[in-house]
Amino acid sequence: MTITSERTSNPIRAIVDNMKIAPNPAKPVISLALGDPTVFGNFNVHKSVTDTLTKHLISGKANGYPPAHGMEAARAAIAKKYTVEAAPLTANDVIIASGCSGAIDLCITAMANPGQTILLPRPGFPLYQTLADSKGIKIKYYNLDPKRNWEIDLVHLESLIDSTTAFILINNPSNPCGSNFSRPHLESVLALAEKHYLPILADEIYADMVFEGQTFTPLASIPSPVPVVSVGGLAKRWLVPGWRVGWILVHDRPQNPVLGAIRTSLLKLSQLIIGANSVIQAALPEILHDTPQEFYDHTNAQLEKHAKVVQEELGKVSGLQIVVPQGAMYVMVGVDVTQFKDIPNDIVFTEFLMAEESVMALPGQCFGYPNFFRIVTCPVEDKLREACRRIAELCARHHV
Amino acid sequence: MTITSERTSNPIRAIVDNMKIAPNPAKPVISLALGDPTVFGNFNVHKSVTDTLTKHLISGKANGYPPAHGMEAARAAIAKKYTVEAAPLTANDVIIASGCSGAIDLCITAMANPGQTILLPRPGFPLYQTLADSKGIKIKYYNLDPKRNWEIDLVHLESLIDSTTAFILINNPSNPCGSNFSRPHLESVLALAEKHYLPILADEIYADMVFEGQTFTPLASIPSPVPVVSVGGLAKRWLVPGWRVGWILVHDRPQNPVLGAIRTSLLKLSQLIIGANSVIQAALPEILHDTPQEFYDHTNAQLEKHAKVVQEELGKVSGLQIVVPQGAMYVMVGVDVTQFKDIPNDIVFTEFLMAEESVMALPGQCFGYPNFFRIVTCPVEDKLREACRRIAELCARHHV
Repeated sequence: MTITSERTSNPIRAIVDNMKIAPNPAKPVISLALGDPTVFGNFNVHKSVTDTLTKHLISGKANGYPPAHGMEAARAAIAKKYTVEAAPLTANDVIIASGCSGAIDLCITAMANPGQTILLPRPGFPLYQTLADSKGIKIKYYNLDPKRNWEIDLVHLESLIDSTTAFILINNPSNPCGSNFSRPHLESVLALAEKHYLPILADEIYADMVFEGQTFTPLASIPSPVPVVSVGGLAKRWLVPGWRVGWILVHDRPQNPVLGAIRTSLLKLSQLIIGANSVIQAALPEILHDTPQEFYDHTNAQLEKHAKVVQEELGKVSGLQIVVPQGAMYVMVGVDVTQFKDIPNDIVFTEFLMAEESVMALPGQCFGYPNFFRIVTCPVEDKLREACRRIAELCARHHV
Repeated sequence: MTITSERTSNPIRAIVDNMKIAPNPAKPVISLALGDPTVFGNFNVHKSVTDTLTKHLISGKANGYPPAHGMEAARAAIAKKYTVEAAPLTANDVIIASGCSGAIDLCITAMANPGQTILLPRPGFPLYQTLADSKGIKIKYYNLDPKRNWEIDLVHLESLIDSTTAFILINNPSNPCGSNFSRPHLESVLALAEKHYLPILADEIYADMVFEGQTFTPLASIPSPVPVVSVGGLAKRWLVPGWRVGWILVHDRPQNPVLGAIRTSLLKLSQLIIGANSVIQAALPEILHDTPQEFYDHTNAQLEKHAKVVQEELGKVSGLQIVVPQGAMYVMVGVDVTQFKDIPNDIVFTEFLMAEESVMALPGQCFGYPNFFRIVTCPVEDKLREACRRIAELCARHHV
């Protein structure tokens, strides 16, 4: 096996493959594991999106090679959607990639050398580590604090910075936390990055997916000299994760030579291979700008309602601790193992959950965070409620 | 800039960007440069393909995450299409990637370590080198012989093999050559690889695109103990290069431990990031198996007719030498610089061609092969003929 292949592993797969627990045959399986909103039939792409894509498909005009970094009109449409006063975007600041994962892959390669270190959130999405490992880039995890809505522990983050640090990655709103950072918190993160001359890679794939009373603040919208590169895509907000359309936004800050180098790196790397399907690129201006606001509002309202179902059903279960989510489609639930007679950790908890209740959820260890488990809030409401009730039954049965 | 970015460059872009020649304002530009069959309006995807894709799009059932290495049904359909008696394929032998370029990228990473050497054809498609450079993998070029229809110079190829050699890459039918290797020639290549215990990566993106009297022989169809991995995709044969659907075929040979390691490497790497658009994957069984044969036949017949136009118009031009193509959509034309008074090489030739005749063609140096230029045979017949006549005029004007 080649070196790069040997370095490559998927932490979720490594943990889940070892679990291999058969469900309880008396109960139908409900999966709360996969962060894919499309699998339950209740979160569907808007008809206007399918219509415009069909139109471009039938036109036959968009089957050829797009430029490697993306079609001009598609990049302009992305820039128009995400431009902010503090760091205005033009089409030249946008690179289209094969999904947000492809965008993250390009950014990590463009922003860190093998042997350098990048700082990742814990709990966090495991792909960051998987990609870094495959490139020989080192990682350190900074803590998020469940007692403060998963804000970054800035003291811990600062303690990890040394001469090998290449950049800080933040993910907001967060998978797996369902958190949404306040503007003052993001200002503190920027101040820390500025103090140590570090750029920030902001994974904002859940941009704008926040609940009533919350405001999503794009990191780049806050004035600061810190170089900010952010990534996003169609996957979550437009409910089409299989379409593989992601993007990189290089937020220009005046006279910043670091960002100039990152931009050059990204453009060179993006020339290697064409990113995303040409027909969807052709439809992107309409997808981004003509999808009715009600569609987005409906998705957020549903996700918020589902998050409340989880709180209603699990909020008072002894031994569990919910961190109330502020956005995205996840709830992290803490497991106080001292309150259970035979559950020493989150892996055993999720194994029991499958074996006894036929409910699948990912243990916190998949996200580097033991004694929590993650609930995906996308299932239809009845199933989600049923799954939560089964979780409560499991807890009652195993409680000390 | 990061190391990987610095290593990354696109040889075609490096050459073409330096040319920047303005066309002759008196003549409309005709481009024979881009290997994209869709840009001229005469090579169009078949309606059955668009219809099935529209059906799957409207169904709304194929918007979720496919497995990272591809949907089972799509992989089974590819296996069924490309299985051969000498090396039968099942869905498990297929990995779906983001375009054939994405497939090549995965294969190079899975089959060679940084510091190892891979053997590439000259003239050849420059992406191979670009990808290898970006990974710190060394390259050596073996010669193709224009006097023998661009067959591999096996003596030269063998002279390049040493202890650092990881694999041999062959491209058949060839871009930029338009050649199609005979079965005996492929047998000789396999014999050489067997002698030196080397695997072969066969880029067969132009599979089955050959002319009357020619037979395309998939490398894996020839019995041999040599590990063969081949790559292909929808881009050329289905006339949709922008769709970004490629695949890797791991052709099993009995009891070959090398191939086992490559397979494991490929599967690990393919877990990193999802390859191709889910809707197209859902439609792939119908695209591969229900597109009418007349569509394929029509494409090949058109390309053959266009290749003949080039031969008719340029075959007797003094100072040019056509290597008659056997397939694909390219003709390589030799330039005997001794016959021109002021054309020292292929780059100057293509610069004059643009400046005086408004015809764009890529110089052979883009493919590592000086004093040739490449003609893409996709333009509509009248334009192609007009372009060739302008080339002939240029030659007459500059002839000694």
